[in-house]
Amino acid sequence: SSSIKPIRATLFPGDGIGPEIAESVKQVFSAAQVPIEWEDHFVGDKVDPRTESFLTWESLESVRRNGVGLKGPMATPIGKGHRSLNLTLRKELGLYANVRPCYSLPGYKTRYDDVNLVTIRENTEGEYSGLEHQVVRGVVESLKIITRQASLRVAEYAFHYAKTHGRQRVSAIHKANIMRKTDGLFLKCCREVAEKYPEITYEEVIIDNCCMMLVKNPALFDVLVMPNLYGDIISDLCAGLIGGLGLTPSCNIGEGGIALAEAVHGSAPDIAGKNLANPTALLLSAVSMLRHLELHDKADQIHNAILKTIAEGKYRTVDLGGNASTTDYTNAVCDNL
Amino acid sequence: SSSIKPIRATLFPGDGIGPEIAESVKQVFSAAQVPIEWEDHFVGDKVDPRTESFLTWESLESVRRNGVGLKGPMATPIGKGHRSLNLTLRKELGLYANVRPCYSLPGYKTRYDDVNLVTIRENTEGEYSGLEHQVVRGVVESLKIITRQASLRVAEYAFHYAKTHGRQRVSAIHKANIMRKTDGLFLKCCREVAEKYPEITYEEVIIDNCCMMLVKNPALFDVLVMPNLYGDIISDLCAGLIGGLGLTPSCNIGEGGIALAEAVHGSAPDIAGKNLANPTALLLSAVSMLRHLELHDKADQIHNAILKTIAEGKYRTVDLGGNASTTDYTNAVCDNL
Ligand SMILES: CC(C)[C@H](C(=O)O)[C@@H](O)C(=O)O
Ligand SMILES: CC(C)[C@H](C(=O)O)[C@@H](O)C(=O)O
Repeated sequence: SSSIKPIRATLFPGDGIGPEIAESVKQVFSAAQVPIEWEDHFVGDKVDPRTESFLTWESLESVRRNGVGLKGPMATPIGKGHRSLNLTLRKELGLYANVRPCYSLPGYKTRYDDVNLVTIRENTEGEYSGLEHQVVRGVVESLKIITRQASLRVAEYAFHYAKTHGRQRVSAIHKANIMRKTDGLFLKCCREVAEKYPEITYEEVIIDNCCMMLVKNPALFDVLVMPNLYGDIISDLCAGLIGGLGLTPSCNIGEGGIALAEAVHGSAPDIAGKNLANPTALLLSAVSMLRHLELHDKADQIHNAILKTIAEGKYRTVDLGGNASTTDYTNAVCDNL
Repeated sequence: SSSIKPIRATLFPGDGIGPEIAESVKQVFSAAQVPIEWEDHFVGDKVDPRTESFLTWESLESVRRNGVGLKGPMATPIGKGHRSLNLTLRKELGLYANVRPCYSLPGYKTRYDDVNLVTIRENTEGEYSGLEHQVVRGVVESLKIITRQASLRVAEYAFHYAKTHGRQRVSAIHKANIMRKTDGLFLKCCREVAEKYPEITYEEVIIDNCCMMLVKNPALFDVLVMPNLYGDIISDLCAGLIGGLGLTPSCNIGEGGIALAEAVHGSAPDIAGKNLANPTALLLSAVSMLRHLELHDKADQIHNAILKTIAEGKYRTVDLGGNASTTDYTNAVCDNL
């Protein structure tokens, strides 16, 4: 037993395969003797009026109190009168930056072997304002909102991230040739922040061209920062380059230094409960949570064990073309610690 | 000399490398004895008040009169008080659908050899409304407009295209899980049209997931139809899969059956006038113009000559890693007719 006072972290196992992959994280963390004590929180079975969603107020309080959390996939129940679980978390916890490192995994072959980039997505506004209405019959409009405050905040995060992670370049992704004022404001904020980081190369890339360059030569990119919807699109594109959302970590940074790491893949109800799910994305997300806590030794140890297990290729889950169970793979990671 | 009455078509050579690649098209067309008589129109050197842009009213009239045209790259002059050339053309000619076939070119190796899809982009509304304003200092909003009329029109075009081109499936690309009303209306229109085409499989794919699937396995897709910005992004992504915008044709379909084919790459001012430009995208666009005119024999003949020249790989322009001049390549295409 360790003498270090354990750090409390909120855990949302989530739906579908969520509980199984969360179990995998718990097993690896305890094998690595990570001084974390999990506080499990499940999505409620009715709408909590205080959150206007199926998330309970207590679970949000838990993340606020602990400052760190890990989240499995959540399937937003269908119906009216409540908010999406993911959007509620982003809004209520002020999760303003979504950070997704994306790198080729040695041993897991895709068409690309030279991906090593990080997408940083503004996570609170833009096309996700939720403001839509019908103007006249057959004419609908939606509002995209860009604010100076949110743009500066995410740009600041991106440059700080680049600097503290030994990255050389920040590319702001935009469509300011068309959306001159909204994306123009976003770029203006990025430029202001770029001035403060002369050691980081700053460039601006139009989103359509960015997508073309990403599929032709992803090695051109390092850190990418962008408004909400572009981040949604580009982060998934990048995940595709290295094998998909089952392999990519994600971490949301919120107000007051909150970090909520999450697997961004779906809850895969078809394979839930069958011990077939791939826990890699959640494991790697948990590693990013450890880095946020500056537990770099533990983070490195677990990260290396995951990479080694993937590189060995002996235990691979079904989604990666193998036939290992979640448990087989998790045991292999533990053995590689 | 042919006895067929020549068909008049408008030609916008455009800027930068435009005139050189337009020359290449003329050469190939005359070698193939295509019964087309070109009406050359250049972008003006001052704003025409009737078009509010550097495009002259006469040039727009020419396209309207001829019903078909071909357009090289146009660099919108910088400054205020006029509209973008591309957007002016789309608006003034009611170019509601942008059609971009995208297929792997035998002999030109990329990471993908199994691409064979067509993107069909709504080309007049959505995020391109141009409606943006500052709400309060530091808060800017832009309006995305989706109408039933434009959505039905492009959906109808996509299904008709699929049916008449032997394609099996239409995928509507959207983000209706977030933009429920705008993208929701777009999907609703696609569904209505899909009902009329029971022989075509219809599916809906969320844009982020679509981009991930495109880079993992583009063979999953056949015809894709989508709102303006998604089309802008996805068509460039797809071009990247097969080698870039220098190799992909594009054709805009407008009101009253107008077709304006165009090379969508830039005007490459750095290599302009040096006989280095790659005319492939403009040539393939010219082929799509011929198909629109139902000159299928000529279209096939030229198309096959282009594919053969690329497959032989002997004459390849600098952008494709070769050292052939524009003229060398064009001569080779003519020889392969
Ligand atoms: C599920 C959906 C609302 C979400 C988004 O669009 O942000 C997802 O795609 C993501 O990237 O986290
Ligand atoms: C140049 C630009 C305005 C244009 C667009 O965004 O539509 C281009 O990217 C295109 O795809 O034709």
